[in-house]
Amino acid sequence: MLGKLFVISAPSGAGKTSLVKGLISSAVHNLCLSISHTTRPPRLGEQDGVDYHFVSEPTFQQMVHKGDFLEHAQVFSHNYGTAYKNIHDQLAQGKDVLLEIDWQGARQVRSKFPDTIGIFILPPSKEKLNERLHGRGQDSEAVINQRMESAYSELSHYKEFDYLIVNDQFDLALEEFKSVVISQRLQSAAQEEQLKMLLIDLLR
Amino acid sequence: MLGKLFVISAPSGAGKTSLVKGLISSAVHNLCLSISHTTRPPRLGEQDGVDYHFVSEPTFQQMVHKGDFLEHAQVFSHNYGTAYKNIHDQLAQGKDVLLEIDWQGARQVRSKFPDTIGIFILPPSKEKLNERLHGRGQDSEAVINQRMESAYSELSHYKEFDYLIVNDQFDLALEEFKSVVISQRLQSAAQEEQLKMLLIDLLR
Repeated sequence: MLGKLFVISAPSGAGKTSLVKGLISSAVHNLCLSISHTTRPPRLGEQDGVDYHFVSEPTFQQMVHKGDFLEHAQVFSHNYGTAYKNIHDQLAQGKDVLLEIDWQGARQVRSKFPDTIGIFILPPSKEKLNERLHGRGQDSEAVINQRMESAYSELSHYKEFDYLIVNDQFDLALEEFKSVVISQRLQSAAQEEQLKMLLIDLLR
Repeated sequence: MLGKLFVISAPSGAGKTSLVKGLISSAVHNLCLSISHTTRPPRLGEQDGVDYHFVSEPTFQQMVHKGDFLEHAQVFSHNYGTAYKNIHDQLAQGKDVLLEIDWQGARQVRSKFPDTIGIFILPPSKEKLNERLHGRGQDSEAVINQRMESAYSELSHYKEFDYLIVNDQFDLALEEFKSVVISQRLQSAAQEEQLKMLLIDLLR
């Protein structure tokens, strides 16, 4: 594969999605977002094919059956999955791919793409995390409790990731996130491929 | 060691020193430059204790004899060396240290600090490199020829380094250089140490 695959995980409320969107809209060339399939209904403002591929339960199960998914998981009674083909095609085109996913998905992805780079986003404090989990103001207490439990379970898996980024000041966290992506491209093995012609020129 | 040691090598004329100075004067906290000892006379504008520790040949040999140097080498009939104690003290204080050095020095450093991160700076083309090697306008033809031979010998060792950065557009190269330094700090092992209190707080 020419491109690199980055999986980004975080407890709900750590600001992962904003960071991923920030990085995608910054000037990093050849970087794209993997768009997951889900059976969850769209939230206000979410668009099909942009935020997710929104599919019905039968369609999703058919894709599972056909082995279309690199990973899939059920979260809060909805199904989420990553289509293998999308990722594969983007990497083969030399694009770096960002994949937002939970720790279970990250494990499945890692088993199929061992060179996957794992990035885990941490909230700046327990207090801030709890505030953010409560703060959306559009969910019931039961959903919030379920989300908190899931957040703390997610947090307990931070060690399975290669990089840890604290999302305290957004701009700083975004710069750090960008550093991780950029620095992977500068590694000698990747550069030898990228700079083949230059190296031939320089070394006669 | 709490800090990380970065060795930066490049053929003469690749712009290594400007990049190192650029990074040191950017807002990266806890980053410092290792200042080498040399028996070479100061160039116009160079300051003792800032650009180098300028020492006499006998003083240098005494330091070699006492085993003060992490590495030392002769380049163009002058001696250059890196005092072990300086680097050690800075790393122990949790500072990241940048060390400008040639491939031979880099090898010696790596053998003593195996976690050293090697960065190699490449010129954007052979033409540009040759221009730059000629361009200083203060050296004789013999010195230029010697420098070119040395530059091509240096280039042939690029594979011994972890990261390759092309210095074509200075600002871009500086940003890439910064990415490499910042991303090392974000690695899980380093962050677990840095974020000990936060992780305890978050995980109860």
